[in-house]
Amino acid sequence: MKRTYINDLKNHGNEEVVVKGFIDKIRDLQYVQFIILRDITGKVQITVEKNEENKELTEIFSNLPLESTISATCKVLINEKVKMGGLELIPSKVEVTSRSLPELPFDIKSKDNALRETRLDYRFLDLRREENQLLFKCETYLEHSMREFCLDNNFIEIHSPKISEGTAEGGAEVFKLDYFGKQASLSQSPQFYKQMAIASGFDKVFEIGTVFRAENSHTSYHATEINMVDIEIGDIDSVSDVMDFQEAWLKYSFTKLKEKYGEEIKKHFNVEISDVSFTFPRITFKEAKEILKEKYHYTGSAPEDFERKEEELLGKYAKEKYKSDFIFITNYPYSARPFYSMKNEEGTTETYDLLYKGIEITSGAQREHRYDILTKQIEEKGIDPKTLDFYIEFFKYGCPPHGGFGFGMARLLMRIFEIDNIREATFIYRGPTRLKP
Amino acid sequence: MKRTYINDLKNHGNEEVVVKGFIDKIRDLQYVQFIILRDITGKVQITVEKNEENKELTEIFSNLPLESTISATCKVLINEKVKMGGLELIPSKVEVTSRSLPELPFDIKSKDNALRETRLDYRFLDLRREENQLLFKCETYLEHSMREFCLDNNFIEIHSPKISEGTAEGGAEVFKLDYFGKQASLSQSPQFYKQMAIASGFDKVFEIGTVFRAENSHTSYHATEINMVDIEIGDIDSVSDVMDFQEAWLKYSFTKLKEKYGEEIKKHFNVEISDVSFTFPRITFKEAKEILKEKYHYTGSAPEDFERKEEELLGKYAKEKYKSDFIFITNYPYSARPFYSMKNEEGTTETYDLLYKGIEITSGAQREHRYDILTKQIEEKGIDPKTLDFYIEFFKYGCPPHGGFGFGMARLLMRIFEIDNIREATFIYRGPTRLKP
Repeated sequence: MKRTYINDLKNHGNEEVVVKGFIDKIRDLQYVQFIILRDITGKVQITVEKNEENKELTEIFSNLPLESTISATCKVLINEKVKMGGLELIPSKVEVTSRSLPELPFDIKSKDNALRETRLDYRFLDLRREENQLLFKCETYLEHSMREFCLDNNFIEIHSPKISEGTAEGGAEVFKLDYFGKQASLSQSPQFYKQMAIASGFDKVFEIGTVFRAENSHTSYHATEINMVDIEIGDIDSVSDVMDFQEAWLKYSFTKLKEKYGEEIKKHFNVEISDVSFTFPRITFKEAKEILKEKYHYTGSAPEDFERKEEELLGKYAKEKYKSDFIFITNYPYSARPFYSMKNEEGTTETYDLLYKGIEITSGAQREHRYDILTKQIEEKGIDPKTLDFYIEFFKYGCPPHGGFGFGMARLLMRIFEIDNIREATFIYRGPTRLKP
Repeated sequence: MKRTYINDLKNHGNEEVVVKGFIDKIRDLQYVQFIILRDITGKVQITVEKNEENKELTEIFSNLPLESTISATCKVLINEKVKMGGLELIPSKVEVTSRSLPELPFDIKSKDNALRETRLDYRFLDLRREENQLLFKCETYLEHSMREFCLDNNFIEIHSPKISEGTAEGGAEVFKLDYFGKQASLSQSPQFYKQMAIASGFDKVFEIGTVFRAENSHTSYHATEINMVDIEIGDIDSVSDVMDFQEAWLKYSFTKLKEKYGEEIKKHFNVEISDVSFTFPRITFKEAKEILKEKYHYTGSAPEDFERKEEELLGKYAKEKYKSDFIFITNYPYSARPFYSMKNEEGTTETYDLLYKGIEITSGAQREHRYDILTKQIEEKGIDPKTLDFYIEFFKYGCPPHGGFGFGMARLLMRIFEIDNIREATFIYRGPTRLKP
């Protein structure tokens, strides 16, 4: 018989069904056993009266460790008195499909009952908590909605190479590896390859994939493996086209997420999905610094970038003035941006950051696509052009104006769900001291 | 003005539009210039009469190298005599957005005009050919359809870690790297982590992501970076559930691909998308060997596996007997399968390969989820259990029966489009001697 999921049982009153799942709880009383079964869709009560007929069943459950898995043939009894979904299951046949050890390494019912590191050691048990399953259902759906929006706009999805010769982007924080006797490194970003796709005439591309950062950082928002979302759009008129796209795309994805999971998110995370019906405000870097100074009497230590505190205040400003959780900060100074950023006539750049709830989640920009200016900017930034030889080639034989953005999915999830640590917002976290499981 | 794509021009007869793209061809005649502009959706003719009024425009085009990019404001003239789409564009303003060098490194118009290695050196130019753009549009759409089917069936998408301690799967062909002083390796497969997701109660999961193989192979179907599609399904009754899912899923994706791109694929690749209206035949490994012997008088050199030649013959058999391009071969001997395969009572395994057009594209199986049997099988295969300690943990605290499959996207594309080399079916190929671009 085909398996019925727990959230579908209400449609099968009085029928015989097969349910499968983990043993969440057992209350073994004098005359009756109440077993709570858990699957990916919810929980249900199985009731076994202790009588002669049920002897075999009673024995199974009186000896079964929690978290074991079963497959059970049951009758569905609609019973409004049962708190758990207004129904209970009366089993006729139970098969134990796997047996847990009697002792779990930690109490998996609540996040607060074990140290984070213990939970991460046993991430496969930690992920059994409902809110974690919800989190990754939401990531799945959010990514799918983002892809859907891209497909509706005729984007091509690319899978860029993760191993390359030397160290691209000239950066220090790359993992190096021996590649058949050659020095190679792991990709920190698909930046160069998504730009290559534009030079290939792919017009609009996206990638969702892993990138690697060899940063010896132990903060709550750094990881060495990151699931990055990258977008690049060809033939733009200006960086505003990129922001327009990102705004529409986030509105689409957030709206879909709210429709499907808004209620559950509220229940498990006590968070409302941001209202995205407002236009995201856009202010320049210079304006932002002025607002910080005049409105909040705060001057950050870095005149060409923002500190955390400044981002927070700007988030507050956006919320108070525009009711928006999002705010675009545009026109960053060139010194704060990479060599491939397009400069403008005001002496700043065609770049932006998007803040969400007071934290930067994306950097976006129009890229410099003109070969001669690009090579000049590489020199200006003091980068050895030899390390970028393959990249510069992309701009020799025609490459339309283009721009895009990228962000780490886990950091976005952290903000949406107001999770305090990236370790909790990643399926399996990797950091300098964590390589397992 | 908003840009209009070339395939949409027919809806804008007599209107003024902005088009953008690459210069595909210029015919500079005595009284007129015909310029072919190319964007991601097609080609169109721009016509410039050489008269006083058009002096500036004429000058632009008489000096413009092919493959430069432009943005042009034009009037759309419906003109049935024009072969290219029955319309031509009369420009009023042209902006050269990027200038190509006058000489391209090879003739990019046809695959056969340059050595493959040259084309791969300049992959960004090679990808400008229409059939390559079509190929990656199709990959995008195929993957999206596969994801869609998974989402409709409540799968969770995972992003498993690509760097792990030691060398998982006990295999030799892994890339090793220094990870903050520790020995680590790049993932060859998400196998262990998709099984972990099942142990986490995720029920049904998929991943589409990069895996790495340090094989020093220079064949037409090996690569060191592979875009893998992986599926794992929990609480199955038998491996048939996995095959049922894979069949339905491929039928869905192939049907969608055919609907959207069937005509174009036929035009550019001279290939019909396989008819998937038939039930995919399923025969056992033993039956397959008998058929090869009796019907084709062929006995392969490996009694416990198939040679290429045998796969070809089985593909022929499926086509002739069942009209199917697909055939499942089931119940492989245990010696030919990994330690985590589930054995059955007949002394074979609950495993299968799926052949498509006479080549294996997938391996699938029910996995051994019972801790004690699994550890025994690790011993049997002579694997040091210490190398699998983190993996074995997943089965200690309840893990439902499960199975799944995986395949490389590029190999599937090769078969669909009948492309002879994986280098042509990968956005940017990586092999032992190719790390660029």
